[in-house]
Amino acid sequence: MANQTKIVECVPNFSEGRDKEKIERIVNPFRTKQGVKLLNYSNDEDHNRCVVTVIGEPKALTEALYEAIEVAVKEIDMTKHEGQHPRMGAVDVVPFIPIRNMEMDEAIALSKEVGKTIGERFGVPVFLYEKSASAPHRENLAKIRKGQFEGMAEKVHEPEWIPDFGPKDIHPTAGVVAVGARMPLVAYNVNLNTSDLSIADAIAKKVRFIGGGLRFCKAMGVELHDRNIVQVSMNLTDYTKTAVYRAHEMVRMEAKRYGVEVVGSEVIGLVPMMALVQCAEYYLGIENFSEDQILETRLME
Amino acid sequence: MANQTKIVECVPNFSEGRDKEKIERIVNPFRTKQGVKLLNYSNDEDHNRCVVTVIGEPKALTEALYEAIEVAVKEIDMTKHEGQHPRMGAVDVVPFIPIRNMEMDEAIALSKEVGKTIGERFGVPVFLYEKSASAPHRENLAKIRKGQFEGMAEKVHEPEWIPDFGPKDIHPTAGVVAVGARMPLVAYNVNLNTSDLSIADAIAKKVRFIGGGLRFCKAMGVELHDRNIVQVSMNLTDYTKTAVYRAHEMVRMEAKRYGVEVVGSEVIGLVPMMALVQCAEYYLGIENFSEDQILETRLME
Repeated sequence: MANQTKIVECVPNFSEGRDKEKIERIVNPFRTKQGVKLLNYSNDEDHNRCVVTVIGEPKALTEALYEAIEVAVKEIDMTKHEGQHPRMGAVDVVPFIPIRNMEMDEAIALSKEVGKTIGERFGVPVFLYEKSASAPHRENLAKIRKGQFEGMAEKVHEPEWIPDFGPKDIHPTAGVVAVGARMPLVAYNVNLNTSDLSIADAIAKKVRFIGGGLRFCKAMGVELHDRNIVQVSMNLTDYTKTAVYRAHEMVRMEAKRYGVEVVGSEVIGLVPMMALVQCAEYYLGIENFSEDQILETRLME
Repeated sequence: MANQTKIVECVPNFSEGRDKEKIERIVNPFRTKQGVKLLNYSNDEDHNRCVVTVIGEPKALTEALYEAIEVAVKEIDMTKHEGQHPRMGAVDVVPFIPIRNMEMDEAIALSKEVGKTIGERFGVPVFLYEKSASAPHRENLAKIRKGQFEGMAEKVHEPEWIPDFGPKDIHPTAGVVAVGARMPLVAYNVNLNTSDLSIADAIAKKVRFIGGGLRFCKAMGVELHDRNIVQVSMNLTDYTKTAVYRAHEMVRMEAKRYGVEVVGSEVIGLVPMMALVQCAEYYLGIENFSEDQILETRLME
């Protein structure tokens, strides 16, 4: 029970969302490896893409990952791939997220080691992105992926888009892959008591980073047709700096001028414990609280 | 990593708070047993008492507990014990608290099994208390302990105080012990911007159970001399039913009539994760949230 095991999360995206048997062959290594836990995987037929969420010890997890990549590189042919979601490779993107007993620096180092191995072992060029990026213009995944698989053969020869690891040319059928480290993402939506989407959009534009809002907040307005209301749908990309409660209160504040009120919220998918504990600390005004006081933290030591 | 290990907490109180070497001999079994984690132990010389906090798998934990009890029964002589804290045995009280993958029923069953073993193996009479009590008048530890060690030799012969397990007479030097199951206790204090203790006392009387307040809340007023303020100091004995935020808001509400405001709060010692997550859920108005969405919960499965 008592140990200081490092735990990393990995969310590899594979460009196969239709062939169930192929998806199973790709996912299988994450089921069978000791020290690795498959949390979730979901495929989207329109996107023709499968997103896997897995946690585990870095060594065991990367071994399972290499096995999955070997299957994907062998079985997915990007020259025949169609799907709505932008993509540039059979293994499209591999983010690492530090979860326990691990600093961001370690996750970055891990992502670089994995990138190097992918380049050498599978002959797929690798772009480091997010916190692992080798230059500021390569941090944003969308910018790296621009041109998609079809444009990559030429793009990798442009001076500013030379891959970080692997061959100089794309893999003929597997394309290229982005590997990097990032913080856990918190998907948090705030519901408003109006059906007017333009209000949710206007608020989203103010609370998000690109509109002059919170540094680690992406946001957009969304309609909830069933309930005849709208929501401000947010991705908080670093909850340690842009706290959930701060995003919540900023939406509430902006909603006021439209005579609109917050009527609930939702957390989508997984959330780190401290992202919610921070909120309890804020609203209760708890002084001098330490994560070590949480019983469950002691169980994981 | 992946398992459904049951985890129980145990907080045995031993009637030795002065002899450091003896305390170490009592505590030592909790350090050395696989599957058991000693979280804390603290002795008080005035109370002449040592409180141990330990978590672990039920089987491993109870084995360590029996070893500790063996030392305590052998080495502590209650006929010579002096201390400010009420006490009735060398091992005064042994509460079990269900932490993970364990219902209260299982903690109750465990406490009864341990009580039976203590009675048989060490010849110390056992009172079941709290959720394990064999009758309502035996739930409250203070009522069981009334008369203390000195009065127990006679008390155990009264019809309503016949022990649940063990011999009919007290152990000559180790007295009797109370064993039972209870919920984790949350020690939560709310600070007020006044130095008037009578205000904190008046509020405490309203929020606590015996004053007509919240069912699982004990409370009293306390002065913080250093800061020249007072606080309502609370013990929440079942946070799943009397939530931290509800106690907090009730203090705030009662404070209003005195023109006094809440200026912070504190959580003392360990707290279950969900006691704080509940507060985030309440203040953010999160809908349809499940504990399984917390990443750390998945790490402990």
